[in-house]
Amino acid sequence: MINAVGRELPEKIGDYIVKPYAGAKETIDAEKTVASRRKPSKRAVNGTKLMPDLKEAIKKTGLRDGMTISFHHCFREGDYIIGLVLSAIKELGIKGLRFAPSAVVNIKNPSIVDFVKDGTINRIQASGIRGELGDAVVEGLELAEPVILRPHGARPHTIETGDLSIDVAFIGASAADDFGNCTGQVGPNACGSLGYSFIDATCAENVVVITDNLVPYPCVPISISQMYVDYVVKVDQIGDSAKIGAGAARRTKNPRDLLIAQRAADVMAASRLFKDGYSFQTGAGAISIACTDFLAEHTEKAGIVASYALGGMTANIVEMHKKGLVNTLLCSQSFDAVAARAIVENPNIIEIDNSMYANMFNKSCALDKLNFGVLGALEIDVDFNINILTGSNGEMMSGIGGGPDVADGADISIVTLPIVRGRIPSVVDRVFTCCTPGSSVAVVVTEAGIALNPKHKSYEMLKEDLQKAGIKTVSIEELLKIAYSLTGVPKPIETTDKITCIVEYRDGTVIDVIREIKRD
Amino acid sequence: MINAVGRELPEKIGDYIVKPYAGAKETIDAEKTVASRRKPSKRAVNGTKLMPDLKEAIKKTGLRDGMTISFHHCFREGDYIIGLVLSAIKELGIKGLRFAPSAVVNIKNPSIVDFVKDGTINRIQASGIRGELGDAVVEGLELAEPVILRPHGARPHTIETGDLSIDVAFIGASAADDFGNCTGQVGPNACGSLGYSFIDATCAENVVVITDNLVPYPCVPISISQMYVDYVVKVDQIGDSAKIGAGAARRTKNPRDLLIAQRAADVMAASRLFKDGYSFQTGAGAISIACTDFLAEHTEKAGIVASYALGGMTANIVEMHKKGLVNTLLCSQSFDAVAARAIVENPNIIEIDNSMYANMFNKSCALDKLNFGVLGALEIDVDFNINILTGSNGEMMSGIGGGPDVADGADISIVTLPIVRGRIPSVVDRVFTCCTPGSSVAVVVTEAGIALNPKHKSYEMLKEDLQKAGIKTVSIEELLKIAYSLTGVPKPIETTDKITCIVEYRDGTVIDVIREIKRD
Repeated sequence: MINAVGRELPEKIGDYIVKPYAGAKETIDAEKTVASRRKPSKRAVNGTKLMPDLKEAIKKTGLRDGMTISFHHCFREGDYIIGLVLSAIKELGIKGLRFAPSAVVNIKNPSIVDFVKDGTINRIQASGIRGELGDAVVEGLELAEPVILRPHGARPHTIETGDLSIDVAFIGASAADDFGNCTGQVGPNACGSLGYSFIDATCAENVVVITDNLVPYPCVPISISQMYVDYVVKVDQIGDSAKIGAGAARRTKNPRDLLIAQRAADVMAASRLFKDGYSFQTGAGAISIACTDFLAEHTEKAGIVASYALGGMTANIVEMHKKGLVNTLLCSQSFDAVAARAIVENPNIIEIDNSMYANMFNKSCALDKLNFGVLGALEIDVDFNINILTGSNGEMMSGIGGGPDVADGADISIVTLPIVRGRIPSVVDRVFTCCTPGSSVAVVVTEAGIALNPKHKSYEMLKEDLQKAGIKTVSIEELLKIAYSLTGVPKPIETTDKITCIVEYRDGTVIDVIREIKRD
Repeated sequence: MINAVGRELPEKIGDYIVKPYAGAKETIDAEKTVASRRKPSKRAVNGTKLMPDLKEAIKKTGLRDGMTISFHHCFREGDYIIGLVLSAIKELGIKGLRFAPSAVVNIKNPSIVDFVKDGTINRIQASGIRGELGDAVVEGLELAEPVILRPHGARPHTIETGDLSIDVAFIGASAADDFGNCTGQVGPNACGSLGYSFIDATCAENVVVITDNLVPYPCVPISISQMYVDYVVKVDQIGDSAKIGAGAARRTKNPRDLLIAQRAADVMAASRLFKDGYSFQTGAGAISIACTDFLAEHTEKAGIVASYALGGMTANIVEMHKKGLVNTLLCSQSFDAVAARAIVENPNIIEIDNSMYANMFNKSCALDKLNFGVLGALEIDVDFNINILTGSNGEMMSGIGGGPDVADGADISIVTLPIVRGRIPSVVDRVFTCCTPGSSVAVVVTEAGIALNPKHKSYEMLKEDLQKAGIKTVSIEELLKIAYSLTGVPKPIETTDKITCIVEYRDGTVIDVIREIKRD
């Protein structure tokens, strides 16, 4: 069968029944009851939840072969938790686990690939598997079923409906008390918002909090309550402080990226939606960070104040808040140390549940009110479909993240990318992997021109606004022509029939699959 | 059958199957899966959740005859929400509802009794039904089934298991945005913690937020997230500001109450658990408030700092925090305007879910760490059983509140009460209504003496500590003798066979029933 973005899909992939992506939904019907299936606990009364070590805690949870474990990725590349836990599980001889973190970070020594190869893990679900694991997967790493990749907004619903039932959630925290109240906002290895873990805490059958900073009861602030936590383990270090707490990214000096960022900010400022009380999400890539700065300049110049910024926070969004240019930051993730520590210091910088941020099956999510969403991309095609996963050789370059959610939620979604990267075109005839449907993309901004999507709901409004502001646009076909004129037409990536990854959309349908790459 | 506190119970009361109270539980077994059965919503995408008026919102929820509605009681005696909603429901002609607020406040014009009499309500579940309604109930007000009264800690579990399934929760908020993010902490009618409503918000099929203070999106702080809210209604006034925001209670000048309060504080200070990092819950009655002051003096004198105070907060507990005598306030309810507004101003005064406070079926609750719990009572008997519901004529004097939870959770539970009230004994042979089992009561403090419960887990420790401090104790039988010597032996209250109220314990078992009072 062929889905609404023209991708050919089988009806079943192993036991996985494919619901093909059928286009944007105006209303959401309740297919399933949302249930957090937490069980009351024998460990409820008296004593302590503190276990002497990870192995003891794992034994207490009753983890056994074939079960599902989860983690958050809030420590980013500095994470030690996943390695520590998987090593302990391996030593206990437990095999064939389903590994379902919010995203896979590229940890080394040991790497996730090692735990796949030794049989500790045999199935994976995450928003992304960037790095060594991802490359191994697309090249045919042996797993019991294809990897399921889904956007941040889809994960909470998949968990709360029981489609992804978590047996043990391991939650790293930079501060915790012995009854499991915990946070990522304080402590030597503060990572900021634990927004990804709320759903794991409330829905997993067993919850283990792991910290290197045990504080007197009660831990303050309480991001995750003791009411959801079974065990607490203190380890020497939850991660590499330098990588967890990396300072603010410096503004890029790449003139091309600065130009794209400036233009994306100009597009926003030209829109009639850019007025007192507007809202935005910019993100954390080099272009996004520069774009935030340009947006701040526009906001200051216009003498207006944004109502809220959403999603992953960076130091320069915090700076905008401190300057009074944006009232409230709804923070589902903290991208740097400044953003991580800003939550406790500023009452209007709020840690939010990732489900509140982006889950379309909620009674609403914060994205439903968003005016401007800025997205990165590896490729965009003439239908405005976005690929944020795979590179020019099919290699796994990134995770899906919240891009599909933001594109769908924002009034105006702006894709920013250079028209070519090295000798590789970013605007293409057809993206190798479709992650975000073109129908949800309003505009693409490159150094070679700005293209509006004539099929987007904002088209007429945005066209008029840009014309009024004297901002020129070109067609996506012209951008494609420019790109190919610089790089030539790329050779298609050859694949086998074996499906290595299933790419879900925010509504749980399948928007694409990734087939095994044929290597010479 | 006879339960563990010697109360005779039928096996069934109408359709209600009686699980008799079987004594304190050392461990909790999971009988039922805890599930918040929230449904995703068609209202999820775009637009606004703001409805023109209450009737429109009620119609949208699909409320119909026989369904269950809920409210919180955080506005206390100043509440207008319940009256406004029930009036709107009545005008819509919807009948036979089950009314399941966290507690019934004594509202007038209209009163709840009127809505029972006209058939709008025909069943009631709450922690208490003090006032006109309660009196009418024990005197035989016609309902489809007996009123179920349960402690604060039992309500969340009853809701999340589906035993009490809420169709529409109406949540009053002193500030809300048009997507339903809301709080009780700011606004002209701030009521403080919305701790009781968290369970309604997460589990009710429909959630309507009602405010008189609509704020720009997003409302800050966010006590309850938009992800759980279907509709928002703005009304002129959510309540009587003077009663919602009543200032701090002045310390009682009643020398008897002061004496009891002083002695209760002396008992705590004499305990070996009174050391740096101790924790307490004192409450909001006249004796409790005075007791907090005396406890503060002891704490200051000892040069120690309490780790946390728990439960309902008062101005003088906030004062203790500001003086550095207690690190953290875990606030499930705000008893006065000072406490209501203190949450936003102090990062260590934290609004907590009532389920985190007291639900014994959680993976733990904050009560599990509590050292000292001070409780009020109407009567205590020679088995240390407590009656906090019914007066000397069987009339409904109060609600169960969190007393049974606190008694069970605290290491040392201290019941404070005058030995007689007017011509009525407070220490009796057998309480008319048993709300809290004597096995969970450590000590009773009266103006005529202090009695330790020899069957309480803390007995040996406390006896030794009080002896060391030179605090004299008497037996409960001696207190009874003194009481009866002042008042004579009270005449038993005569009842019919009709059960008007079922009194549940914190574990969902039946600890007592209240039968219809025979009036001359």
